[in-house]
Amino acid sequence: MRFSNWMIGITGALAAMMGAAAAADKPLPPFSIASQGSFFLGGRDIQSNTLSTRANSGGTVTVDQVYVRYQIPAKAGKRHPITFIHGCCLTGKTWESTPDGRMGWDEFFLRQGHPVYVLDQAGRGRSATDPTNINAVKLGQAPVEKLPQVSFASHEGAWTLFRFGATNGETNPGLQFPLEAQAEFWKQMVPDWIGALPTPNPTVPALSDLATRLKGTVLVSHSQSGLYPFLAAARSTDGIAGIVAIEPANCPAPADSMAPYVKFPILVLFGDFVAQSPVWSTKLKECSAFRDAANAAGGKVEVVALPDVGFHGNSHMLMEDRNSLDIARWLAKWIDGHIG
Amino acid sequence: MRFSNWMIGITGALAAMMGAAAAADKPLPPFSIASQGSFFLGGRDIQSNTLSTRANSGGTVTVDQVYVRYQIPAKAGKRHPITFIHGCCLTGKTWESTPDGRMGWDEFFLRQGHPVYVLDQAGRGRSATDPTNINAVKLGQAPVEKLPQVSFASHEGAWTLFRFGATNGETNPGLQFPLEAQAEFWKQMVPDWIGALPTPNPTVPALSDLATRLKGTVLVSHSQSGLYPFLAAARSTDGIAGIVAIEPANCPAPADSMAPYVKFPILVLFGDFVAQSPVWSTKLKECSAFRDAANAAGGKVEVVALPDVGFHGNSHMLMEDRNSLDIARWLAKWIDGHIG
Repeated sequence: MRFSNWMIGITGALAAMMGAAAAADKPLPPFSIASQGSFFLGGRDIQSNTLSTRANSGGTVTVDQVYVRYQIPAKAGKRHPITFIHGCCLTGKTWESTPDGRMGWDEFFLRQGHPVYVLDQAGRGRSATDPTNINAVKLGQAPVEKLPQVSFASHEGAWTLFRFGATNGETNPGLQFPLEAQAEFWKQMVPDWIGALPTPNPTVPALSDLATRLKGTVLVSHSQSGLYPFLAAARSTDGIAGIVAIEPANCPAPADSMAPYVKFPILVLFGDFVAQSPVWSTKLKECSAFRDAANAAGGKVEVVALPDVGFHGNSHMLMEDRNSLDIARWLAKWIDGHIG
Repeated sequence: MRFSNWMIGITGALAAMMGAAAAADKPLPPFSIASQGSFFLGGRDIQSNTLSTRANSGGTVTVDQVYVRYQIPAKAGKRHPITFIHGCCLTGKTWESTPDGRMGWDEFFLRQGHPVYVLDQAGRGRSATDPTNINAVKLGQAPVEKLPQVSFASHEGAWTLFRFGATNGETNPGLQFPLEAQAEFWKQMVPDWIGALPTPNPTVPALSDLATRLKGTVLVSHSQSGLYPFLAAARSTDGIAGIVAIEPANCPAPADSMAPYVKFPILVLFGDFVAQSPVWSTKLKECSAFRDAANAAGGKVEVVALPDVGFHGNSHMLMEDRNSLDIARWLAKWIDGHIG
């Protein structure tokens, strides 16, 4: 029995459902880690007189750094390190165990022999935000316009944007997202400070930095972070072995220089129910136009919708859907076949 | 050679120092994990019309949940799970690899056979904050007084409070903190929303919930979180096998009922340079008074200053000091001997 079966639910009903879900899991053997840990990329020191609203609360703090947790399997072989970058209103938790307690993609790819790196975007999760303007306004030292842009996605908005259903509360037919653990999923969501960050988003140079160090990593983005690996590649393709963009919010524009994007294989992956979503059907079209431009310039870009390769019912959070590990298996094979 | 040697520094000088530090590490064999993952404790849904400053940005969000990452060793044996709770202005990163890239206490205790649980306190790290009042003020719908209390500890303030030195920039003689990686340590610090959280701090019931599920865990706190395990025990001692309070900001008052604190072994641990610190020498005195009261009521409370058991030069961040693993070894033995 997986440990995960009892750690989720609080109510008896939920616990019972989780127990059933866990019992259906195949028990997995232990796996061996050569090393693990965490570190930061980037970051800069700033001075402020409003680190809090107390008197004499001036000094130096560090902001814009990017937290990275990594694990290196004992049998790493020659598989590329995989770098996971989460999307809007979420953190690196996206890639860890699912809301219903199944294995996350971080562990799946680790067990496949890939070193795994999981980021918290700048200003999210364990990557510090800059609250100094909140305190300056509270102290009357700055106008309210100086308050940072901090957005929190609502359950209702996420329901349709993540394609759990076409309208709030309705469920897409055959949906693979584990709705019985929906309350656990909502807890993954955090406020998004992206509008308060400098340009370029510090996550982009952090990706460049990490790729250079890893000497060949596959950058796997999701949603909001979709363009970041491409922006990193436009800075330098050094150390980027490939890009997997899962339902990217943006692909590079076809009119952009394609030079950086022809140097390694690229996969853009979409789930199900895309045609019914005005937002995501537009993204799919834009990414298809990018594919055509990149491939005309000699690139190796594929755009895949999961139903076309036999997976049905997938939401925007396909790495947490019930068939997430089947998709992961397919993706691992794609990476082996295309990136090596 | 440990992987950690190259992941820290950006400058050549720092990289060189790290290389030297890593070379001095003993290489460790791989270790085997039975299962790992993450989940949340607690959390409540709130409604707001100011989830962002855009029009129609109302809806439901979840706040006050507590993120927990866990790892279960393949050879867990009968050792108690250990729950690590970080202190002020920090996250669960505290217990992961050190600023100079050495093994963190999370991995050390895992390798000793303890299941390990690492929390991000409510409103910190991967545990969501509530930004709705920021947006309400920005939109002119609430007065600036409604802005949340968000404090960011300065490098300068932390330098003395964490006892790197008696005054800013000065270094305590024989200090064990790896100052050559100081820039990496500053990146661990994040804004603290504790003043914006409800009472009791949601981390406290989360600890109770976790202890009940784990049926016998050692709660290891640090600094700001020092009182939380005691507050959890005052709610219910169910599932609490022991408490290790590392330099707690508070111990229970001697006048409080000692009934919850006589049911399991308790260790209060301090580093070096305490006598020279007005803040920490006061805490040590308060905790000693608590010990006397608890033991008079039949408790098993020890207060230990590391120099008295042979460790010298330790800062407030003793789990990241150069001799952190020697201290961890001593602590593991204390836990084995006193809690079993």
